[in-house]
Amino acid sequence: MPPSEFELIARYFTGHDRGDGVLLGVGDDAALLAPLAPGEALAVTVDTLVAGVHFDPACDPAALGHKLLAVNLSDLAAMGAEPLWATLALTLPTADAAWLEAFSGGLAALAADHGVALVGGDTTRGPLTLTLQAAGRVPADRALRRAGARPGDGIYVTGTLGDAALALRDPPDLDRVERAALRQRLERPTPRVAAGRALRGLASAAIDLSDGLAADLGHVLDASGVGATVTLADLPLTPALARLAAAGDWQLPLAGGDDYELCFTVPAAREATLAAAALAVAATRIGTVEAASGLRLRAPDGTPYRLARAGYDHFGAAP
Amino acid sequence: MPPSEFELIARYFTGHDRGDGVLLGVGDDAALLAPLAPGEALAVTVDTLVAGVHFDPACDPAALGHKLLAVNLSDLAAMGAEPLWATLALTLPTADAAWLEAFSGGLAALAADHGVALVGGDTTRGPLTLTLQAAGRVPADRALRRAGARPGDGIYVTGTLGDAALALRDPPDLDRVERAALRQRLERPTPRVAAGRALRGLASAAIDLSDGLAADLGHVLDASGVGATVTLADLPLTPALARLAAAGDWQLPLAGGDDYELCFTVPAAREATLAAAALAVAATRIGTVEAASGLRLRAPDGTPYRLARAGYDHFGAAP
Repeated sequence: MPPSEFELIARYFTGHDRGDGVLLGVGDDAALLAPLAPGEALAVTVDTLVAGVHFDPACDPAALGHKLLAVNLSDLAAMGAEPLWATLALTLPTADAAWLEAFSGGLAALAADHGVALVGGDTTRGPLTLTLQAAGRVPADRALRRAGARPGDGIYVTGTLGDAALALRDPPDLDRVERAALRQRLERPTPRVAAGRALRGLASAAIDLSDGLAADLGHVLDASGVGATVTLADLPLTPALARLAAAGDWQLPLAGGDDYELCFTVPAAREATLAAAALAVAATRIGTVEAASGLRLRAPDGTPYRLARAGYDHFGAAP
Repeated sequence: MPPSEFELIARYFTGHDRGDGVLLGVGDDAALLAPLAPGEALAVTVDTLVAGVHFDPACDPAALGHKLLAVNLSDLAAMGAEPLWATLALTLPTADAAWLEAFSGGLAALAADHGVALVGGDTTRGPLTLTLQAAGRVPADRALRRAGARPGDGIYVTGTLGDAALALRDPPDLDRVERAALRQRLERPTPRVAAGRALRGLASAAIDLSDGLAADLGHVLDASGVGATVTLADLPLTPALARLAAAGDWQLPLAGGDDYELCFTVPAAREATLAAAALAVAATRIGTVEAASGLRLRAPDGTPYRLARAGYDHFGAAP
């Protein structure tokens, strides 16, 4: 007889539920979490990964566990929040002990890196679907929102853009080392948690890049009621992406998706402070917020650049 | 062109995100929720419903929206918590506007009844899978846990048992009114939120009945390190279930699942107080907690009753 649901949960998803403010973890009707300090707000986000849509069902389950938590921590980072707790809803076609061990191990390792307690969950049978909700704390008046960008603010991104999308495209001209580095960016993104916290009181708006720079920066501009010009020559690119860009292909850094970098705006008066801030990752100025609505892209030759497709949309027109 | 993911979310799942302590609802990287009062804990639970496993994909989407929230509010009720916020992760094969309107309407109506704000979510394409996480508040030292039952405590359940399971079985001898009432119990369970709150400081342990009385009471007994005897003749049954029981069939009230009633224990000294408490639903004494481990069932003729199967298990042996 295969192990029961309760045995599965007990075996793989308990023991990771200790942490700051956890009064009661896995194993009751609900977890009990201690209140925050006065003035702090709870930041809450949820993301789902679906087999065959967001990942190959045959992919490394440890990387999948890492990524599921990473994409949620990236959302918390974009609010400037410190991660605290997560819950996991796991729908599985079969109870595969080796898969569960690797998956929970990948998730638990990243959780431990960030002090995140896995406080609850639900395991069900069905098509492989993973939903994680993460919560963190942030001083309520210093949370980084999408609304807040003002004309004149500098626009920045952390890290480099388009790497995960190029790993998915997997062109034949990549050498072994380059391919491995790009796959790491796709499969094990690093949530920019320290950068998000360092940007409290510094950034005027922030978002994490999951659907591509053009679409996600577009959300910031819409929420803030402003526009922007982005200078393509200033986009931070790894060599493989730079080669594509030199050939005129800017699709991946602008609309590739799955970057999990932060995009944020900083008032001119605070840009010097930003340069000295400890973000734990490079931040690159890529453009300027403007009063006129819309996102304008300037090609290296100075002409306007038109993007074929803005970003990933689960239910929109086919790619 | 079908509506985009962002349009879908905006159309159906915003506007329900106002409520106590919601600083920022749907539409940013994360929701921002205000801290609780001193001494209060956050109770957090998550449940997934999978098409073809937990519900018929052709079922009424309004009832499904109701049930998805109800099963989570039932978990919060079992902690004695007052519901506050929910997030929704919705995986859909297609973007069907009529389905989404009915589903979100059913969910929003129950949310409004309980003052629950829908503060965030994620919509993805894939096999129909619904995950909702709900959070509530409860004085940390008065939360109802599974551990806490002591020998001599009375064992109680709210409402009636086995109705949802009988609706699933759908026997031919039910009349129209009886069938409709049972289907209502299956499709639109009433979370016992008021009862849970009233049981703070009164019950020594509590759980909600989702997998069947025998399995769920078993969790309370295991967590508390005790055993119990339950008297089958005392189980609260609607007439259709009572007819089955009279014929010797106790499977549904003991192991049918999907009851979403509360099972709780009360120390003898507080049983008189319970009788006067405002639970908003009937509570019936069905047995007594004992020091000897194990769950003993006593048939109406006084002999021990042996249960064929303890409760629903997603990954255990087939039913």
